[in-house]
Amino acid sequence: MSAELRKHIEEIVSLTDDEFEHINEHFKIKHLKKHQYLIQEDEHVKYMYFVIKGLLKATFTDVNGKEYIIQFAMENWWISDFKAFYQNAKSITNISCLENVELLSISRENLNKICSENHKMEHFFRVKNSYGYIALQQRILSLLSTSPKERFEQFSNQYPQLGQRVSKTIIAAYLGISRETLSRLSVKV
Amino acid sequence: MSAELRKHIEEIVSLTDDEFEHINEHFKIKHLKKHQYLIQEDEHVKYMYFVIKGLLKATFTDVNGKEYIIQFAMENWWISDFKAFYQNAKSITNISCLENVELLSISRENLNKICSENHKMEHFFRVKNSYGYIALQQRILSLLSTSPKERFEQFSNQYPQLGQRVSKTIIAAYLGISRETLSRLSVKV
Repeated sequence: MSAELRKHIEEIVSLTDDEFEHINEHFKIKHLKKHQYLIQEDEHVKYMYFVIKGLLKATFTDVNGKEYIIQFAMENWWISDFKAFYQNAKSITNISCLENVELLSISRENLNKICSENHKMEHFFRVKNSYGYIALQQRILSLLSTSPKERFEQFSNQYPQLGQRVSKTIIAAYLGISRETLSRLSVKV
Repeated sequence: MSAELRKHIEEIVSLTDDEFEHINEHFKIKHLKKHQYLIQEDEHVKYMYFVIKGLLKATFTDVNGKEYIIQFAMENWWISDFKAFYQNAKSITNISCLENVELLSISRENLNKICSENHKMEHFFRVKNSYGYIALQQRILSLLSTSPKERFEQFSNQYPQLGQRVSKTIIAAYLGISRETLSRLSVKV
Protein backbone atom coordinates (compact mmCIF):
# COMPACT_ATOMS: atom_id res chain seq x y z
CA MET A 1 0.00 0.00 0.00
CA SER A 2 1.64 3.19 -1.15
CA ALA A 3 0.50 6.28 0.73
CA GLU A 4 2.54 8.42 -1.69
CA LEU A 5 0.70 7.07 -4.75
CA ARG A 6 -2.69 7.52 -3.13
CA LYS A 7 -1.92 11.09 -2.11
CA HIS A 8 -0.67 11.80 -5.63
CA ILE A 9 -3.80 10.40 -7.32
CA GLU A 10 -6.09 12.13 -4.84
CA GLU A 11 -4.71 15.53 -5.81
CA ILE A 12 -6.97 15.07 -8.84
CA VAL A 13 -9.63 12.44 -8.00
CA SER A 14 -10.97 10.97 -4.74
CA LEU A 15 -10.90 7.21 -4.27
CA THR A 16 -12.52 4.90 -1.76
CA ASP A 17 -10.22 2.57 0.21
CA ASP A 18 -11.42 -0.38 -1.89
CA GLU A 19 -10.83 1.46 -5.13
CA PHE A 20 -7.33 2.45 -4.14
CA GLU A 21 -6.46 -1.01 -2.89
CA HIS A 22 -7.54 -2.50 -6.21
CA ILE A 23 -5.53 0.07 -8.19
CA ASN A 24 -2.51 -0.39 -5.96
CA GLU A 25 -2.48 -4.13 -6.73
CA HIS A 26 -1.52 -3.29 -10.32
CA PHE A 27 1.73 -1.65 -9.24
CA LYS A 28 4.92 -3.41 -8.21
CA ILE A 29 7.65 -1.96 -6.06
CA LYS A 30 11.17 -1.71 -7.46
CA HIS A 31 14.42 -0.62 -5.84
CA LEU A 32 17.53 0.45 -7.71
CA LYS A 33 20.81 1.90 -6.54
CA LYS A 34 22.55 5.04 -7.72
CA HIS A 35 24.12 4.53 -11.19
CA GLN A 36 21.92 1.51 -12.03
CA TYR A 37 19.85 1.54 -15.20
CA LEU A 38 16.05 1.39 -15.17
CA ILE A 39 15.70 1.30 -18.98
CA GLN A 40 18.45 0.84 -21.55
CA GLU A 41 18.44 1.96 -25.16
CA ASP A 42 17.01 -0.61 -27.56
CA GLU A 43 15.03 -2.51 -24.90
CA HIS A 44 11.30 -3.09 -25.23
CA VAL A 45 9.56 -0.84 -22.71
CA LYS A 46 6.70 -2.48 -20.86
CA TYR A 47 6.43 -0.29 -17.78
CA MET A 48 6.10 3.26 -16.64
CA TYR A 49 7.25 4.25 -13.18
CA PHE A 50 6.08 6.46 -10.34
CA VAL A 51 8.92 7.75 -8.17
CA ILE A 52 8.41 7.28 -4.42
CA LYS A 53 11.95 8.23 -3.50
CA GLY A 54 15.09 9.25 -5.35
CA LEU A 55 16.06 10.89 -8.61
CA LEU A 56 16.52 9.62 -12.18
CA LYS A 57 17.45 10.99 -15.57
CA ALA A 58 16.34 9.96 -19.06
CA THR A 59 19.01 10.61 -21.66
CA PHE A 60 19.54 10.34 -25.38
CA THR A 61 23.03 9.66 -26.72
CA ASP A 62 23.82 10.85 -30.23
CA VAL A 63 26.12 9.12 -32.75
CA ASN A 64 29.09 11.07 -31.38
CA GLY A 65 28.44 9.86 -27.84
CA LYS A 66 27.12 13.22 -26.64
CA GLU A 67 24.40 12.88 -24.00
CA TYR A 68 21.21 14.98 -23.86
CA ILE A 69 18.80 15.01 -20.93
CA ILE A 70 15.21 14.42 -21.97
CA GLN A 71 13.71 14.46 -18.51
CA PHE A 72 14.39 14.17 -14.82
CA ALA A 73 12.12 12.42 -12.36
CA MET A 74 12.02 12.79 -8.62
CA GLU A 75 9.42 12.15 -5.91
CA ASN A 76 5.84 12.12 -7.31
CA TRP A 77 6.96 12.26 -10.96
CA TRP A 78 6.35 9.61 -13.59
CA ILE A 79 9.10 8.36 -15.86
CA SER A 80 9.56 6.00 -18.79
CA ASP A 81 10.55 6.13 -22.42
CA PHE A 82 6.97 7.19 -23.06
CA LYS A 83 7.11 6.83 -26.84
CA ALA A 84 8.28 3.23 -26.50
CA PHE A 85 5.89 2.57 -23.59
CA TYR A 86 2.74 3.84 -25.34
CA GLN A 87 3.65 2.47 -28.75
CA ASN A 88 4.98 -0.89 -27.52
CA ALA A 89 8.34 -0.13 -29.12
CA LYS A 90 12.02 -0.10 -28.29
CA SER A 91 13.56 2.59 -26.13
CA ILE A 92 15.69 5.27 -27.73
CA THR A 93 16.71 6.51 -24.28
CA ASN A 94 18.67 5.35 -21.27
CA ILE A 95 17.08 5.93 -17.89
CA SER A 96 19.45 5.74 -14.95
CA CYS A 97 19.46 6.55 -11.26
CA LEU A 98 21.16 9.68 -9.94
CA GLU A 99 20.36 8.51 -6.39
CA ASN A 100 19.10 5.27 -4.83
CA VAL A 101 15.47 5.03 -5.92
CA GLU A 102 12.22 3.44 -4.84
CA LEU A 103 9.69 3.15 -7.66
CA LEU A 104 6.27 1.76 -8.42
CA SER A 105 5.97 0.16 -11.85
CA ILE A 106 2.82 -0.40 -13.87
CA SER A 107 2.60 -2.25 -17.19
CA ARG A 108 0.84 -0.81 -20.24
CA GLU A 109 -1.80 -3.54 -19.97
CA ASN A 110 -2.47 -2.75 -16.33
CA LEU A 111 -2.53 0.98 -16.97
CA ASN A 112 -5.19 0.46 -19.63
CA LYS A 113 -7.01 -1.96 -17.33
CA ILE A 114 -7.27 0.39 -14.34
CA CYS A 115 -8.27 3.26 -16.65
CA SER A 116 -10.96 1.20 -18.31
CA GLU A 117 -12.26 -0.26 -15.03
CA ASN A 118 -12.40 3.05 -13.23
CA HIS A 119 -13.44 6.22 -15.04
CA LYS A 120 -11.78 8.30 -12.31
CA MET A 121 -8.39 6.82 -13.18
CA GLU A 122 -8.92 7.55 -16.86
CA HIS A 123 -9.68 11.13 -15.82
CA PHE A 124 -6.61 11.25 -13.58
CA PHE A 125 -4.27 10.22 -16.39
CA ARG A 126 -5.98 12.51 -18.92
CA VAL A 127 -5.33 15.44 -16.62
CA LYS A 128 -1.76 14.31 -15.81
CA ASN A 129 -1.03 13.97 -19.53
CA SER A 130 -2.34 17.47 -20.16
CA TYR A 131 -0.05 18.85 -17.40
CA GLY A 132 2.84 16.98 -18.99
CA TYR A 133 2.00 18.47 -22.39
CA ILE A 134 1.94 21.98 -20.96
CA ALA A 135 5.28 21.51 -19.20
CA LEU A 136 6.92 20.29 -22.42
CA GLN A 137 5.47 23.20 -24.40
CA GLN A 138 7.02 25.57 -21.85
CA ARG A 139 10.35 23.81 -22.24
CA ILE A 140 10.21 24.11 -26.04
CA LEU A 141 9.45 27.81 -25.74
CA SER A 142 12.35 28.16 -23.36
CA LEU A 143 14.73 26.31 -25.70
CA LEU A 144 13.62 28.42 -28.66
CA SER A 145 13.41 31.85 -27.15
CA THR A 146 15.58 32.31 -24.08
CA SER A 147 19.24 33.01 -23.52
CA PRO A 148 21.31 30.51 -21.48
CA LYS A 149 21.09 32.93 -18.52
CA GLU A 150 17.27 33.16 -18.66
CA ARG A 151 16.99 29.41 -19.17
CA PHE A 152 19.07 28.68 -16.09
CA GLU A 153 17.06 31.18 -14.02
CA GLN A 154 13.77 29.64 -15.16
CA PHE A 155 15.08 26.17 -14.28
CA SER A 156 16.27 27.29 -10.83
CA ASN A 157 12.93 28.93 -10.08
CA GLN A 158 10.84 26.06 -11.43
CA TYR A 159 12.82 23.22 -9.82
CA PRO A 160 14.73 24.68 -6.85
CA GLN A 161 15.19 21.16 -5.39
CA LEU A 162 16.73 19.73 -8.56
CA GLY A 163 19.45 22.35 -8.66
CA GLN A 164 20.67 21.07 -5.28
CA ARG A 165 20.57 17.38 -6.20
CA VAL A 166 22.04 17.35 -9.70
CA SER A 167 25.54 18.15 -10.92
CA LYS A 168 26.21 21.25 -13.05
CA THR A 169 27.25 19.04 -15.99
CA ILE A 170 23.87 17.34 -15.97
CA ILE A 171 21.92 20.60 -15.63
CA ALA A 172 23.88 21.99 -18.59
CA ALA A 173 22.93 18.92 -20.68
CA TYR A 174 19.26 19.44 -19.74
CA LEU A 175 19.32 23.12 -20.67
CA GLY A 176 21.25 22.58 -23.90
CA ILE A 177 24.07 24.93 -22.86
CA SER A 178 27.76 24.27 -22.30
CA ARG A 179 29.17 23.35 -18.90
CA GLU A 180 31.44 26.42 -19.03
CA THR A 181 28.56 28.81 -19.73
CA LEU A 182 26.57 27.31 -16.87
CA SER A 183 29.49 27.70 -14.46
CA ARG A 184 29.75 31.39 -15.27
CA LEU A 185 25.99 31.81 -14.75
CA SER A 186 25.74 29.88 -11.50
CA VAL A 187 28.47 31.97 -9.91
CA LYS A 188 26.57 35.13 -10.78
CA VAL A 189 23.03 34.02 -9.85
CA MET B 1 -22.81 17.17 -37.74
CA SER B 2 -19.11 16.96 -38.45
CA ALA B 3 -18.04 13.82 -40.28
CA GLU B 4 -14.39 14.87 -39.84
CA LEU B 5 -14.68 15.04 -36.05
CA ARG B 6 -16.46 11.70 -35.87
CA LYS B 7 -13.85 10.02 -38.06
CA HIS B 8 -11.09 11.55 -35.93
CA ILE B 9 -12.59 10.35 -32.63
CA GLU B 10 -13.34 6.92 -34.05
CA GLU B 11 -9.68 6.37 -34.84
CA ILE B 12 -9.43 5.69 -31.09
CA VAL B 13 -12.95 4.86 -29.79
CA SER B 14 -16.21 3.74 -31.44
CA LEU B 15 -19.33 5.77 -30.85
CA THR B 16 -23.01 5.10 -31.52
CA ASP B 17 -24.90 7.66 -33.63
CA ASP B 18 -26.66 8.95 -30.51
CA GLU B 19 -23.42 9.27 -28.60
CA PHE B 20 -21.74 11.18 -31.39
CA GLU B 21 -24.71 13.46 -31.90
CA HIS B 22 -24.71 14.36 -28.22
CA ILE B 23 -20.93 15.01 -28.24
CA ASN B 24 -21.20 17.03 -31.43
CA GLU B 25 -23.74 19.35 -29.80
CA HIS B 26 -20.98 20.63 -27.50
CA PHE B 27 -18.93 21.94 -30.41
CA LYS B 28 -19.56 25.16 -32.34
CA ILE B 29 -18.40 25.90 -35.84
CA LYS B 30 -16.15 28.89 -36.45
CA HIS B 31 -14.80 30.37 -39.67
CA LEU B 32 -11.86 32.72 -39.93
CA LYS B 33 -10.02 34.18 -42.88
CA LYS B 34 -6.30 34.07 -43.60
CA HIS B 35 -4.40 36.54 -41.33
CA GLN B 36 -7.23 36.72 -38.76
CA TYR B 37 -6.47 35.96 -35.12
CA LEU B 38 -8.09 33.09 -33.26
CA ILE B 39 -6.45 33.90 -29.90
CA GLN B 40 -4.49 37.00 -28.98
CA GLU B 41 -1.86 37.35 -26.29
CA ASP B 42 -3.27 38.34 -22.89
CA GLU B 43 -6.82 37.14 -23.62
CA HIS B 44 -8.58 34.62 -21.38
CA VAL B 45 -8.71 31.32 -23.26
CA LYS B 46 -12.02 29.49 -22.97
CA TYR B 47 -11.90 27.20 -25.97
CA MET B 48 -9.79 24.65 -27.72
CA TYR B 49 -10.25 24.04 -31.42
CA PHE B 50 -10.36 21.12 -33.82
CA VAL B 51 -9.30 22.02 -37.35
CA ILE B 52 -11.67 20.88 -40.08
CA LYS B 53 -10.00 22.86 -42.83
CA GLY B 54 -7.06 25.22 -43.11
CA LEU B 55 -3.83 25.97 -41.31
CA LEU B 56 -2.92 28.02 -38.23
CA LYS B 57 0.15 28.90 -36.22
CA ALA B 58 0.61 29.56 -32.49
CA THR B 59 3.43 32.01 -31.81
CA PHE B 60 5.22 33.59 -28.90
CA THR B 61 6.70 37.07 -29.29
CA ASP B 62 9.65 37.99 -27.09
CA VAL B 63 10.41 41.45 -25.65
CA ASN B 64 12.43 42.30 -28.76
CA GLY B 65 9.52 41.50 -31.05
CA LYS B 66 11.04 38.26 -32.33
CA GLU B 67 8.45 35.59 -33.10
CA TYR B 68 8.78 31.87 -32.25
CA ILE B 69 6.43 29.18 -33.51
CA ILE B 70 5.06 26.98 -30.74
CA GLN B 71 2.85 24.83 -32.92
CA PHE B 72 1.10 24.52 -36.23
CA ALA B 73 -2.34 23.05 -36.69
CA MET B 74 -3.92 21.74 -39.86
CA GLU B 75 -6.75 19.32 -40.68
CA ASN B 76 -7.49 16.93 -37.77
CA TRP B 77 -5.18 18.72 -35.32
CA TRP B 78 -6.21 20.45 -32.11
CA ILE B 79 -5.02 23.93 -31.22
CA SER B 80 -5.26 26.40 -28.37
CA ASP B 81 -3.02 28.11 -25.87
CA PHE B 82 -3.28 24.88 -23.88
CA LYS B 83 -1.67 26.22 -20.72
CA ALA B 84 -4.19 29.06 -20.59
CA PHE B 85 -7.04 26.76 -21.66
CA TYR B 86 -6.45 24.07 -19.03
CA GLN B 87 -5.51 26.48 -16.25
CA ASN B 88 -8.20 29.07 -17.03
CA ALA B 89 -5.54 31.71 -17.51
CA LYS B 90 -4.49 34.36 -20.00
CA SER B 91 -2.81 33.45 -23.26
CA ILE B 92 0.91 34.06 -23.72
CA THR B 93 0.60 33.21 -27.41
CA ASN B 94 -1.01 34.57 -30.55
CA ILE B 95 -2.80 32.09 -32.74
CA SER B 96 -3.47 33.24 -36.29
CA CYS B 97 -4.60 31.78 -39.57
CA LEU B 98 -2.14 31.01 -42.35
CA GLU B 99 -5.08 30.06 -44.59
CA ASN B 100 -8.87 30.46 -44.39
CA VAL B 101 -9.95 28.06 -41.66
CA GLU B 102 -12.99 26.12 -40.54
CA LEU B 103 -12.83 25.06 -36.89
CA LEU B 104 -14.89 23.37 -34.23
CA SER B 105 -14.60 24.97 -30.80
CA ILE B 106 -15.29 23.38 -27.44
CA SER B 107 -15.21 25.15 -24.09
CA ARG B 108 -13.28 23.81 -21.09
CA GLU B 109 -16.60 23.19 -19.29
CA ASN B 110 -18.00 21.22 -22.21
CA LEU B 111 -14.79 19.26 -22.66
CA ASN B 112 -14.96 18.21 -19.02
CA LYS B 113 -18.68 17.50 -19.39
CA ILE B 114 -18.38 15.16 -22.38
CA CYS B 115 -15.41 13.41 -20.76
CA SER B 116 -17.27 12.93 -17.52
CA GLU B 117 -20.52 11.83 -19.21
CA ASN B 118 -18.84 9.36 -21.54
CA HIS B 119 -15.90 7.28 -20.41
CA LYS B 120 -14.94 6.66 -24.04
CA MET B 121 -14.36 10.38 -24.56
CA GLU B 122 -12.20 10.56 -21.44
CA HIS B 123 -10.20 7.68 -22.91
CA PHE B 124 -9.99 9.40 -26.29
CA PHE B 125 -8.53 12.57 -24.79
CA ARG B 126 -6.18 10.65 -22.49
CA VAL B 127 -4.74 8.89 -25.52
CA LYS B 128 -4.62 12.10 -27.61
CA ASN B 129 -2.80 13.86 -24.78
CA SER B 130 -0.27 11.05 -24.58
CA TYR B 131 0.36 11.32 -28.34
CA GLY B 132 0.81 15.07 -27.92
CA TYR B 133 3.28 14.50 -25.10
CA ILE B 134 5.33 12.10 -27.21
CA ALA B 135 5.41 14.50 -30.17
CA LEU B 136 6.65 17.33 -27.95
CA GLN B 137 9.33 15.12 -26.40
CA GLN B 138 10.54 14.30 -29.91
CA ARG B 139 10.66 18.01 -30.72
CA ILE B 140 12.68 18.76 -27.57
CA LEU B 141 15.13 16.03 -28.47
CA SER B 142 15.40 17.44 -31.96
CA LEU B 143 16.00 20.99 -30.65
CA LEU B 144 18.66 19.74 -28.23
CA SER B 145 20.52 17.26 -30.32
CA THR B 146 20.23 17.85 -34.05
CA SER B 147 21.95 20.17 -36.49
CA PRO B 148 19.80 22.62 -38.51
CA LYS B 149 20.16 20.28 -41.50
CA GLU B 150 18.92 17.21 -39.61
CA ARG B 151 16.13 19.22 -38.03
CA PHE B 152 14.88 20.42 -41.40
CA GLU B 153 15.04 16.89 -42.82
CA GLN B 154 13.10 15.48 -39.86
CA PHE B 155 10.49 18.21 -40.27
CA SER B 156 10.16 17.57 -44.02
CA ASN B 157 9.76 13.83 -43.48
CA GLN B 158 7.36 14.18 -40.56
CA TYR B 159 5.14 16.86 -42.09
CA PRO B 160 5.58 16.74 -45.88
CA GLN B 161 2.31 18.68 -46.38
CA LEU B 162 3.32 21.53 -44.09
CA GLY B 163 6.49 22.24 -46.06
CA GLN B 164 4.32 22.98 -49.09
CA ARG B 165 1.84 25.21 -47.28
CA VAL B 166 4.08 27.34 -45.07
CA SER B 167 6.66 29.97 -45.98
CA LYS B 168 10.36 29.35 -45.37
CA THR B 169 10.47 32.20 -42.83
CA ILE B 170 7.81 30.49 -40.75
CA ILE B 171 9.44 27.05 -40.96
CA ALA B 172 12.73 28.62 -39.84
CA ALA B 173 10.97 30.17 -36.81
CA TYR B 174 9.49 26.75 -35.95
CA LEU B 175 12.85 24.98 -36.20
CA GLY B 176 14.75 27.68 -34.32
CA ILE B 177 17.16 28.29 -37.17
CA SER B 178 17.83 31.39 -39.25
CA ARG B 179 16.03 32.09 -42.52
CA GLU B 180 19.37 32.17 -44.34
CA THR B 181 20.45 28.76 -43.02
CA LEU B 182 17.12 27.27 -44.02
CA SER B 183 17.39 28.69 -47.55
CA ARG B 184 20.77 27.04 -48.01
CA LEU B 185 19.37 23.73 -46.73
CA SER B 186 16.19 23.72 -48.78
CA VAL B 187 18.08 24.23 -52.00
CA LYS B 188 20.21 21.20 -51.23
CA VAL B 189 17.54 18.83 -49.96
